[in-house]
Amino acid sequence: MNKIKPTLVQGTRDYGPEMMHKRNLIIHTIKDVFEKYAFQPLETPAMERLDTLTGKYGEEGDRLIFRILNSGDFKKEVDPQTWNQAESSALAALICEKALRYDLTVPFARYVAMNMYSLALPFKRYQIQPVWRADRPQKGRFREFYQCDADVVGSSSLWQEVELLLIYTEVFQKLNIPVTIRINNRKLLNALAAKAGAGERFATFVIILDKLDKIGKEEVIKEWLNAGFSPEGIDALSRWIFDENPNLEQVREALARDEEGIQELEFILKHLRSISAAAPVRFDPTLARGLDYYTGTVFEVVVQGVEVGSVGGGGRYNDLTGIFGVDGIPGVGISFGLDRILIAMEELGLFDGQLPLKSTVLVTALSEDQMPDAAKIATQLRNAGVSTELYPGGARLKKSLAYAHKTSIPFAVIIGENEAKKHTVLLKNMHSGDQIEVQTEQLIARKDDFFQLKK
Amino acid sequence: MNKIKPTLVQGTRDYGPEMMHKRNLIIHTIKDVFEKYAFQPLETPAMERLDTLTGKYGEEGDRLIFRILNSGDFKKEVDPQTWNQAESSALAALICEKALRYDLTVPFARYVAMNMYSLALPFKRYQIQPVWRADRPQKGRFREFYQCDADVVGSSSLWQEVELLLIYTEVFQKLNIPVTIRINNRKLLNALAAKAGAGERFATFVIILDKLDKIGKEEVIKEWLNAGFSPEGIDALSRWIFDENPNLEQVREALARDEEGIQELEFILKHLRSISAAAPVRFDPTLARGLDYYTGTVFEVVVQGVEVGSVGGGGRYNDLTGIFGVDGIPGVGISFGLDRILIAMEELGLFDGQLPLKSTVLVTALSEDQMPDAAKIATQLRNAGVSTELYPGGARLKKSLAYAHKTSIPFAVIIGENEAKKHTVLLKNMHSGDQIEVQTEQLIARKDDFFQLKK
Repeated sequence: MNKIKPTLVQGTRDYGPEMMHKRNLIIHTIKDVFEKYAFQPLETPAMERLDTLTGKYGEEGDRLIFRILNSGDFKKEVDPQTWNQAESSALAALICEKALRYDLTVPFARYVAMNMYSLALPFKRYQIQPVWRADRPQKGRFREFYQCDADVVGSSSLWQEVELLLIYTEVFQKLNIPVTIRINNRKLLNALAAKAGAGERFATFVIILDKLDKIGKEEVIKEWLNAGFSPEGIDALSRWIFDENPNLEQVREALARDEEGIQELEFILKHLRSISAAAPVRFDPTLARGLDYYTGTVFEVVVQGVEVGSVGGGGRYNDLTGIFGVDGIPGVGISFGLDRILIAMEELGLFDGQLPLKSTVLVTALSEDQMPDAAKIATQLRNAGVSTELYPGGARLKKSLAYAHKTSIPFAVIIGENEAKKHTVLLKNMHSGDQIEVQTEQLIARKDDFFQLKK
Repeated sequence: MNKIKPTLVQGTRDYGPEMMHKRNLIIHTIKDVFEKYAFQPLETPAMERLDTLTGKYGEEGDRLIFRILNSGDFKKEVDPQTWNQAESSALAALICEKALRYDLTVPFARYVAMNMYSLALPFKRYQIQPVWRADRPQKGRFREFYQCDADVVGSSSLWQEVELLLIYTEVFQKLNIPVTIRINNRKLLNALAAKAGAGERFATFVIILDKLDKIGKEEVIKEWLNAGFSPEGIDALSRWIFDENPNLEQVREALARDEEGIQELEFILKHLRSISAAAPVRFDPTLARGLDYYTGTVFEVVVQGVEVGSVGGGGRYNDLTGIFGVDGIPGVGISFGLDRILIAMEELGLFDGQLPLKSTVLVTALSEDQMPDAAKIATQLRNAGVSTELYPGGARLKKSLAYAHKTSIPFAVIIGENEAKKHTVLLKNMHSGDQIEVQTEQLIARKDDFFQLKK
């Protein structure tokens, strides 16, 4: 075995203990809310058949799929002429049958299509797993990252949208992150595009509108005009579409007719507010969510006061499983951007004063002779529900306390010969440095007094 | 987009809701115990550099590593002559820089080596993640499966072994699985091999002994003799080594000298029993744990009365990170076999009577008009801590009750026009079919009486 310098694959990360604690705090909060609303967990394999994935994410997406080389003699399976002449892109399909999942939606669609006849509809699932993309690594963009999705399929009831908005509201409330949930409807966007004279060119209309956050209102209008849309239509539209607080009644007037998208938005907002008056939701007619497969409601969540981009998004779609030959399964889903939520919480200082990263107490003996006593006290503390670390084998006190400091353990329990005889321990607050002698029995009985954690 | 019939990659599985609930029950139990003992979570990326993995698992292992094809024009990077002449195995290393992790130990070693100077030792980590092996798929053997490891590195104290045995004891006790933890020591095995006249051929001695469960005692003795070991030594050894309950004193006598392995085992067993008298641990001088890198204590956990193979194993090693150029990091670790634990629990009926898989209550309205009331009651139930599903949009009652049945939701709350007027609901026990009318306020206030779950 050669000794090699250990490194990570570019664009991937280890999640060490501190990062794991922060991530787990976020993930547990989201999971608890999902389960409260009767969403069920699903996990799919990291590897899918290559043909399950290709053609689902556009040309650029196809290039970013990580392919897994066939095991064994893959060269033998390709005829020699092809081997010599074909280009890498064509060869990849011949020597790779498997690939790493690129998102959670296509594997979910495959799962639903495969299990169509045993699933009870509506089927509500959540899924929190890593995905892989062969993107060029850069700051804040990774080749492995977690996605966190919840979808309801098999129901076109708008109550599903109401419930998903309640979930968004509750999760960000629990995490103490101030957010705005932007909501719009693709049917309304279609009507607006028609009003602007976009005709068949709805996609162009949306692609330009989608740049709003980057290039601003004036540039969007300019690009619409350059694209040849109706100046009168654009003018009428831009009089209210960029307003801070457009209301649906205005939109109805502006369109000079009723419209399904408006009705849906009204239904959702009315019922949402009757259940949760404080839901931080805001109608935003400029929200498009790209050229995704959405057909009705679209959502996007942004953090107030922190520039991290959107921390959530989703929408309603007509047909999840058509690509797998199963038609007529509508659905609606939301996702949470775990990496960005974490960054936002760090910037807002929301992890400060959380529970200790490691254990609450370090138990340490002044010599090997006191280790059996130390081990017994550690066991009693653990059985009393206190996460406890036993420092091994009679080390020098200085060393064990340095360890407690370095790992941020807030309390140390020290046992020497005298203490063992008297059935006492020294309890040291690692933060203040204060130290008191306590009867061992009292230490357990009054643990809640002794191990008060900073709030 | 072609419509393709959706299938899984051979040897991989979806974990649907039922399987996820069972797995989560096991994983949460293990995690809680790990954290009680101050082990900290770690996750490493699915992809490692190919050269981080190769050469660590033997020739067979190398073949079973899944390689990830380089993105972009991989063919261009190989000179044409090599492209034509090289065999698949040589080419694989030229067109793949990355691979999927094969176990959790090598990535952990890489992590420790990379973070050596920032880690506080001893470092106690646990890691629960999938690994991938290009094994031929067969019953009970998968190409993607979870491993679950806990290791302490940077400490050679035998108290670590004591604590790991306490963790095994506590986890299986909490899961209600009756187990035996077999324990042995590689130093003792070395001494026994010497006694049997194995000389330098310790590996041969162990490989034969490792077959004991498969081929039985007589065949092991025969193979040892065929391997040319000392007939007298084998004879002396086989007089006690296969005993049901060999004790360490006998072994000391048989070896006619004291031996470090015996001392270590005595220390561990003595202190373990003083803390947990009922720890189901048994000294077993035939336990070898293959030709792994173990150098001291070895463990293996088997279920009593169910044939599933070992559900746990581990041991002490001298040098975790030497392969990455960082010497002198000893450690000891254990692992849990999640798939086998699940099978054992299914066979023992331990999942029967657990909490409902989906929500506790389905709230359903007899018509769309009662949906706002239904949504409010669902919200109140959820806020009172009851996992609740709101059945969408005024479906026929028969349909929503069939849904509750199919998804095993134990209670339904039904709201019709009359009930809405009277502020009551119908509460139906889906199991017994019993139905009562309840004041809505009472439903929430007395939820613990109404939603009694089978134990």
